[in-house]
Amino acid sequence: MKSLEERILSEGIVKDGEILRVDSFLNHQMDPAMFREMAKEWYREFADAGVNKILTIEASGIGLAVVAAEEFGCRAVFAKKVSGRNMDTDVYATKITSFTKGKVYDVVVSKRFLNPGDRVLIVDDFLANGCALDGLMDLVRQAGATLVGCGIAIEKGFQGGGTRIRAQGVRVHSLAIIESMDGDQIAFCEE
Amino acid sequence: MKSLEERILSEGIVKDGEILRVDSFLNHQMDPAMFREMAKEWYREFADAGVNKILTIEASGIGLAVVAAEEFGCRAVFAKKVSGRNMDTDVYATKITSFTKGKVYDVVVSKRFLNPGDRVLIVDDFLANGCALDGLMDLVRQAGATLVGCGIAIEKGFQGGGTRIRAQGVRVHSLAIIESMDGDQIAFCEE
Repeated sequence: MKSLEERILSEGIVKDGEILRVDSFLNHQMDPAMFREMAKEWYREFADAGVNKILTIEASGIGLAVVAAEEFGCRAVFAKKVSGRNMDTDVYATKITSFTKGKVYDVVVSKRFLNPGDRVLIVDDFLANGCALDGLMDLVRQAGATLVGCGIAIEKGFQGGGTRIRAQGVRVHSLAIIESMDGDQIAFCEE
Repeated sequence: MKSLEERILSEGIVKDGEILRVDSFLNHQMDPAMFREMAKEWYREFADAGVNKILTIEASGIGLAVVAAEEFGCRAVFAKKVSGRNMDTDVYATKITSFTKGKVYDVVVSKRFLNPGDRVLIVDDFLANGCALDGLMDLVRQAGATLVGCGIAIEKGFQGGGTRIRAQGVRVHSLAIIESMDGDQIAFCEE
């Protein structure tokens, strides 16, 4: 998506050659006009897929998921990070490793909000090594729901998660795919 | 807001006489059509106030804040809960006590996203004792920005936070105010 790539070039900050900060419009400050454009793009890609639920993970996926759900005319659900002791029994649970934070999270979704009949589009802001997607796909599987695909804002192509997950036959649509971040030089590639 | 009150009555679950669970449409599963209606209502109330930024706190305020920001034609920012060791230096920071979770959070907003010229509407899903609002208002004050008011989805009137904050001269607009939760009986009152 040209406008997203331009936005990344003009506002993104590369840190330590690995981290891309886009907190001026995506995951701290949020630009709803850009979110709307992104959601429309996911809708164009998955309009034929009968999506009836958007699934994401807190916190930075939530805004994107709500706007996407509005485009698809369905509801959004966000998986919650919990500490073990607060764990409900009526949830699907999985573990997600965050490399940026050096932490393993227990992540849950209430069984009331993911059902065998659901056709789920997973939405998230970043796809790097794919750990978050692995966890969210595991929740969809546990619920017996159908995974329609994944709508991603920014994929770090050089970290391999997207390649690995597409190889499993999952339809992943990333709006911007970064091929390399060399110093401050960000290069994009096609899907 | 009649439709929100009806939704609370039909889907809300009262737990231990104090906790109201509305996770089927507000803060775990999210209904974007209801969010849109709520955002339009906040816009009607604050249309004259020159709002140019929506501020909320992760996680459950984020979806509401993005939809509200779209109505106001501005950006939304969410304050982040951080553990002390990750604290950046370029942030405004405050502490927020969560009684439901029995925890004190360090909460931050990057200094880049709250400015002296900003006219800020705080948006959140719940107002109970008002601790979250106190913290968010403190961040607005630290930034030297102007607090226009607070748009709340559900206020638990019997917990006193709204009364206390309105007494400080802050314009608080809650879309549903619960006067009492007696067993499963939920009663609403006017602002």
